[in-house]
Amino acid sequence: MKLDDLVYRTSEWLKGQGPSSEIVMSSRVRLARNIDGMTFSHRASREKQAEVVSLVHSAVESSKFLRNSSFFDLSELGPLDCQFLRERHLISHELAESKGVRAVVVSDNEIVSIMINEEDHLRLQAIESGLQLMAAWRLIDGIESELDTQLRFAFSKEWGYLTACPTNAGTGMRASVMLHLPSLVLTKQISKVLQAITKLGLVARGLYGEGTEPLGNYFQISNQVTLGQAEEEIIDNIERVIKQIIGHEENARKILLSKGRRQLLEDKVFRAYGILKNVRIIDSSETVNLLSALRLGVDLGLTEDISRQAINELLIITQPAHLQKLQGRALSPAQRDVKRAELIRERLEKSK
Amino acid sequence: MKLDDLVYRTSEWLKGQGPSSEIVMSSRVRLARNIDGMTFSHRASREKQAEVVSLVHSAVESSKFLRNSSFFDLSELGPLDCQFLRERHLISHELAESKGVRAVVVSDNEIVSIMINEEDHLRLQAIESGLQLMAAWRLIDGIESELDTQLRFAFSKEWGYLTACPTNAGTGMRASVMLHLPSLVLTKQISKVLQAITKLGLVARGLYGEGTEPLGNYFQISNQVTLGQAEEEIIDNIERVIKQIIGHEENARKILLSKGRRQLLEDKVFRAYGILKNVRIIDSSETVNLLSALRLGVDLGLTEDISRQAINELLIITQPAHLQKLQGRALSPAQRDVKRAELIRERLEKSK
Repeated sequence: MKLDDLVYRTSEWLKGQGPSSEIVMSSRVRLARNIDGMTFSHRASREKQAEVVSLVHSAVESSKFLRNSSFFDLSELGPLDCQFLRERHLISHELAESKGVRAVVVSDNEIVSIMINEEDHLRLQAIESGLQLMAAWRLIDGIESELDTQLRFAFSKEWGYLTACPTNAGTGMRASVMLHLPSLVLTKQISKVLQAITKLGLVARGLYGEGTEPLGNYFQISNQVTLGQAEEEIIDNIERVIKQIIGHEENARKILLSKGRRQLLEDKVFRAYGILKNVRIIDSSETVNLLSALRLGVDLGLTEDISRQAINELLIITQPAHLQKLQGRALSPAQRDVKRAELIRERLEKSK
Repeated sequence: MKLDDLVYRTSEWLKGQGPSSEIVMSSRVRLARNIDGMTFSHRASREKQAEVVSLVHSAVESSKFLRNSSFFDLSELGPLDCQFLRERHLISHELAESKGVRAVVVSDNEIVSIMINEEDHLRLQAIESGLQLMAAWRLIDGIESELDTQLRFAFSKEWGYLTACPTNAGTGMRASVMLHLPSLVLTKQISKVLQAITKLGLVARGLYGEGTEPLGNYFQISNQVTLGQAEEEIIDNIERVIKQIIGHEENARKILLSKGRRQLLEDKVFRAYGILKNVRIIDSSETVNLLSALRLGVDLGLTEDISRQAINELLIITQPAHLQKLQGRALSPAQRDVKRAELIRERLEKSK
């Protein structure tokens, strides 16, 4: 598969299906791994970095799990293509921006991706639609085991998997769930919920992970600690907390649908829909916020004109690099705001 | 005609026709007259006020011009009905609120109305659609002459027609034009234009006359001075100035339609349209402002889905008293915001 083939495809995890998908957008598990005996990526020479890329590439090529995967050498890609991969949540901001020899392996349906020479030699991730952390864990664990037979990952009996940053040592695992919590935001309960999360050893971030602001009522919740607990224990713990948050969001949705408030909610949802169907110029953050309101309307059955998948797709393809890839040329921010509006109108018209 | 019959009718001057109707909503001429030998309304006893009402009523009944007119005794109407008449621009705020014996005569098509015992014994007005000040003047002048033969209006050779307030003496005439000037507002030229108007002896007010703020980019421009000039001179002067303002607004519209700005304008127009078609809760001033943006889109040919008349009608029927008359019952402000939204959606759906 060529990179450009991705432009017209929908990542499997955007399908808007799976358990609790009216609140949970996606579940992601990522593992940090390093090859035994090789210098950590950030201290390695370009030659050593290239050797890591090459070792992983070979291991992937003989993998059963990753048979239909694609390999992208980021040194050969321009900044637009790197941003494009990042917008699809296939690579991190750090990998996109770094100057080293680096690459990414992407599975056919984009559920699995493996970053090579990010902070660690390997960052393996699996993303599933809806609340499916355990499934994501089992998938990525299987792939990790298969690769381990060839790559031999650095492991200490005392510390577990060794990682470039000690905060990742032990399991090397970060499990995270992307939640859409508009009703907790609207009923002003969100800060109480986020405070409680922190006390439980979890951390909440925005749509694009570490350092990003919550946008469009999306919150990514993940484990803080990677050491001292087994993977499945960590996942059980997160899933238990997530289910509580889902319960809170469901209650808040009931409040918003109650007699005295329903019209306010409908007003918010349909104004957003009306703007999106008619807009001529729109920036990214307004897009995310209006799509969030529309998604809430779809999830509550206020409108059946549009599917959750169509909204998820819009969330991805209205981003700057995606817009430029779809147009096949570089666009200034002002041009993007116009093309973004066109694309939204077109998709909402089509999905009716 | 009963008052309630008006609810489902469109006033003739709202048809959105006539010269320059893409900028001029309506032209109005009103004359202040008092019956010779009778005390001015505000100093008269209730008996004397009743006598004035009765005299005018009789004169109207034998009038050829006002053959099909209706007579409404405001003492018999509740505050909702008074507000309803005011919202249709048939009576003033002062007449609606006053406690005296008072009435209004309304012609069949609502082009002519005569307030009895407002500030003066009679306030006769004619409103026409578009820029038709001279036509409005000729119409109201004819009616005035006809009534004069029966009522004998107070007139002094030195001061002209005598009025309760000296600022109206002389001709007793106020000629005003309601202009829709969104492009002068958007291009920030409006304050310069309004300043120039003042220097020319004219005055600019908002949608509901004296003391009201400009809302929805509507400006009512009228003569300040009533004394020392013949009526047709005053009207010629206003029409000349109005034509200049129309020229400025037309130029500003061309600027907004120019290559670099057109999309911004379309965005404004279609966002307004999208919100109006989908809104569930909306107050009066947002309604007026969004309808103003939509009207500009219609006037510039950006959309042909809706007529200028439909927008003018919405401007009138979304007002509080109209909403309540249409529903046939009293509504709280919150209920009105919901009914207003319903009515707007229904009308925009129908007019497609």
